[in-house]
Amino acid sequence: MLIFKLYLTCGKKMTDSQGEVTPLELYEKLNVQGEKVRSLKTAKAEKAEIDTAVQLLLKLKTDYKHLTGQDYKAGCPPPENVVNQDNGSATDGIDEEDNVDPWNVSTSNAKGVDYDKLIVRFGSSKIEKELVDRIEKVTGQKPHRFLRRGIFFSHRDMHQVLDAYEKNKSFYLYTGRGPSSEAMHVGHLIPFIFTKWLQDVFDIPLVIQLTDDEKYLWKDLTIEECHRFAVENAKDIIACGFDVNKTFIFSDFDYMGSSPEFYRNVVKIQKHVTYNQVKGIFGFTDSDCIGKISFPAIQAAPSFSNSFPQIFGGRRDIQCLIPCAIDQDPYFRMTRDVAPRIGYPKPALLHSSFFPALQGAQTKMSASDANSSIFLTDTPKQIKNKVNKHAFSGGKDTVEEHRKFGGNPDVDVSFMYLTFFLDDDEQLEKIKQDYSSGALLTGELKKILIETLQPMIAQHQERRKQVTEETVKQFMTPRPLNFKL
Amino acid sequence: MLIFKLYLTCGKKMTDSQGEVTPLELYEKLNVQGEKVRSLKTAKAEKAEIDTAVQLLLKLKTDYKHLTGQDYKAGCPPPENVVNQDNGSATDGIDEEDNVDPWNVSTSNAKGVDYDKLIVRFGSSKIEKELVDRIEKVTGQKPHRFLRRGIFFSHRDMHQVLDAYEKNKSFYLYTGRGPSSEAMHVGHLIPFIFTKWLQDVFDIPLVIQLTDDEKYLWKDLTIEECHRFAVENAKDIIACGFDVNKTFIFSDFDYMGSSPEFYRNVVKIQKHVTYNQVKGIFGFTDSDCIGKISFPAIQAAPSFSNSFPQIFGGRRDIQCLIPCAIDQDPYFRMTRDVAPRIGYPKPALLHSSFFPALQGAQTKMSASDANSSIFLTDTPKQIKNKVNKHAFSGGKDTVEEHRKFGGNPDVDVSFMYLTFFLDDDEQLEKIKQDYSSGALLTGELKKILIETLQPMIAQHQERRKQVTEETVKQFMTPRPLNFKL
Repeated sequence: MLIFKLYLTCGKKMTDSQGEVTPLELYEKLNVQGEKVRSLKTAKAEKAEIDTAVQLLLKLKTDYKHLTGQDYKAGCPPPENVVNQDNGSATDGIDEEDNVDPWNVSTSNAKGVDYDKLIVRFGSSKIEKELVDRIEKVTGQKPHRFLRRGIFFSHRDMHQVLDAYEKNKSFYLYTGRGPSSEAMHVGHLIPFIFTKWLQDVFDIPLVIQLTDDEKYLWKDLTIEECHRFAVENAKDIIACGFDVNKTFIFSDFDYMGSSPEFYRNVVKIQKHVTYNQVKGIFGFTDSDCIGKISFPAIQAAPSFSNSFPQIFGGRRDIQCLIPCAIDQDPYFRMTRDVAPRIGYPKPALLHSSFFPALQGAQTKMSASDANSSIFLTDTPKQIKNKVNKHAFSGGKDTVEEHRKFGGNPDVDVSFMYLTFFLDDDEQLEKIKQDYSSGALLTGELKKILIETLQPMIAQHQERRKQVTEETVKQFMTPRPLNFKL
Repeated sequence: MLIFKLYLTCGKKMTDSQGEVTPLELYEKLNVQGEKVRSLKTAKAEKAEIDTAVQLLLKLKTDYKHLTGQDYKAGCPPPENVVNQDNGSATDGIDEEDNVDPWNVSTSNAKGVDYDKLIVRFGSSKIEKELVDRIEKVTGQKPHRFLRRGIFFSHRDMHQVLDAYEKNKSFYLYTGRGPSSEAMHVGHLIPFIFTKWLQDVFDIPLVIQLTDDEKYLWKDLTIEECHRFAVENAKDIIACGFDVNKTFIFSDFDYMGSSPEFYRNVVKIQKHVTYNQVKGIFGFTDSDCIGKISFPAIQAAPSFSNSFPQIFGGRRDIQCLIPCAIDQDPYFRMTRDVAPRIGYPKPALLHSSFFPALQGAQTKMSASDANSSIFLTDTPKQIKNKVNKHAFSGGKDTVEEHRKFGGNPDVDVSFMYLTFFLDDDEQLEKIKQDYSSGALLTGELKKILIETLQPMIAQHQERRKQVTEETVKQFMTPRPLNFKL
């Protein structure tokens, strides 16, 4: 499992045998000591040596509990501004089965990851109704269903973005995708559908990073393959309807080699992040290649407006807002930690939940498992077959039981997908009630989903067909964009 | 001290408790275990724990001796193709006081670093008279005094370069400089003087890397300062007389942002080098920033011809020859290890000895210590004063003693400098004899050096004055070069 942590730019300190420590420093010591104990045991070291290491581990755990009021748990760093409430169990009990990082998402809970706990763990803020209302007020638009339904459920500094926007200080959007294959599935569209809505209602510029270098470093693929996937994925992204006059899409392999300013920011970030830090955040080990170790700076750099002089004319003070799935947050916790130290504003974030696999919300949809995914290239027939065959059902075993006891929409994947794609709130609520009461059978629910997905994907395919090489080139050429900041 | 190691792409293996290990793997284990013992002692750990760690260390040392026939010594990795000759002392006895790495050079020996031992330690080959004669035969030119006098004393694969050259298969030159300040001293000129000679006699293209990104990462300087130093240093380099039609000089900050092919090679290298490897080679620690950790790939990339498509038209098979001071060799050991794994030819190398500080050959000349250096901006008067005041003398305390016993040219810095800069072999030999016999006094020897340096530096200053911003721009613009491969 990859271990996460939060940076604390402020926070309570305590004095231990080696002087003052923050909760995060203590947490790091615990990680290191825990690893040591494990490696001693694996190496079948002398009992005396193991005992000594274990004693120190226990001592550190006591210190940690004392300082933070929480039990230490590997993979659960102390949240921002942690305070000892003298109540050890207050924020305890984070589900050990929830694994969430940029490369893995899994949980033992059929309802999916516990997002409220994730907010505590990551130290972000919940998107409360008040914030949704405020976005409606500021933009004069009905909030997107992803906001209304808590699919985007967490944020960092969104109020600050709105405060500034109300004072006519605008911002820009940054999102991205790791192009690991040609095949994109419907889950991949979530951040782009939402980002397009944000671009429309706020009328602001957008940069989209395709991390073909990351995919080359992590996967058994050639540079040429990753770059080709980037261009192919760009077509699907463009098909979401982005405004070419306000959107710049770039492949890292291309843009790094055409923008000295982008590289300068990458090196600036790389100077201010240590190996210890990325090890703590991303779980890198000493056997990892140096490309992986330095990559986080490349995903961080687009958060700063002067990485795009062709768009922002060298201005470094324009606030960035990043809509992304919550698993990408570690990159931006790191970015937010670095930002003030290199004189740049911290990017704000809007986090989405995961798009569940057909088999259930224990994992997210994955392009590498064809049966778990509805691809953007699927035919109506394939969509129908996949939903009917694989979509995990919250219904009862027999029609009789279902009619009597009703189905469980909370674990039903077809219903979950409808919350993503069916825009009509009333219709969705009715489906939920009917399914819960047993009036709506699983087959009928699946049929509604199939009839929602089929035209949606057919329309996507139609729009994608319209995307010419020329259009891709236009989007991917560094150039000024058309907007007022 | 920074620890060095060699990669073994082949080599004898032995079986230890954890399966087969190479000498290098065992060497790495020893480094790790040694560090562990030190940290336990520093942390005043339990005696039992320290004892266990020490026992394992001793066990590993025995294994190492058994496998390599050599005693383990920190900082002295096993040479390439090491074989147990059943003779523990054969290659033993490397001077523990010789520290040589890209950031530090020092020795306790007044004659300077023991270069024969360094060749053994680094696993390179000595430049024998036979190789010098061969270069003369192939080029039809009298070998440069740096070759005649063993100032370039070590190489890798130079015979292979000449074999190919004789079959009309050409190569290109790559050298560089880390622009840490505006001030360059005469020692900095050594690789450039020699590289210019190589360019002339072989008639081949040359790329010169200015690692302004490296200096930003290592020093307390801004990106803008490092880039400015790069441009200023380029002027001094150009003043060495390079042919603009055959030479491309680049700043990393500029070139990375203008060549997607260069970045692709950097990432390709970064994918094939682990943190463990750079830790072993360069002595990085977990507290080092991720920029330092990934930087070695950036110094490696110019060793591959397809990093310069504007020069080599995308060809990846053109052999590279790197003239550099021996302290840069770790970068290229790493490069040579990676090359075959990414389908590129290994770069060949020619290594120079260090240019001694005025105070003596225990350290190399350093721009950060003004009294140790003759700068390229020094006036004739400054040169005279510095030599007279600071140049370490191998002479006797009194004229009488000197006349009677003679001076020692082997430790005399003025004489050493003359071996670098006085081209006339006979004159140099006569000076040596006269100084050794006592016929030539220290003051007279210094006078010869002063009269050699003053016009040399004045001429350099004159040539540098001729270097306009326009000329610099020409050299630093990515473009085709004029040559036949």
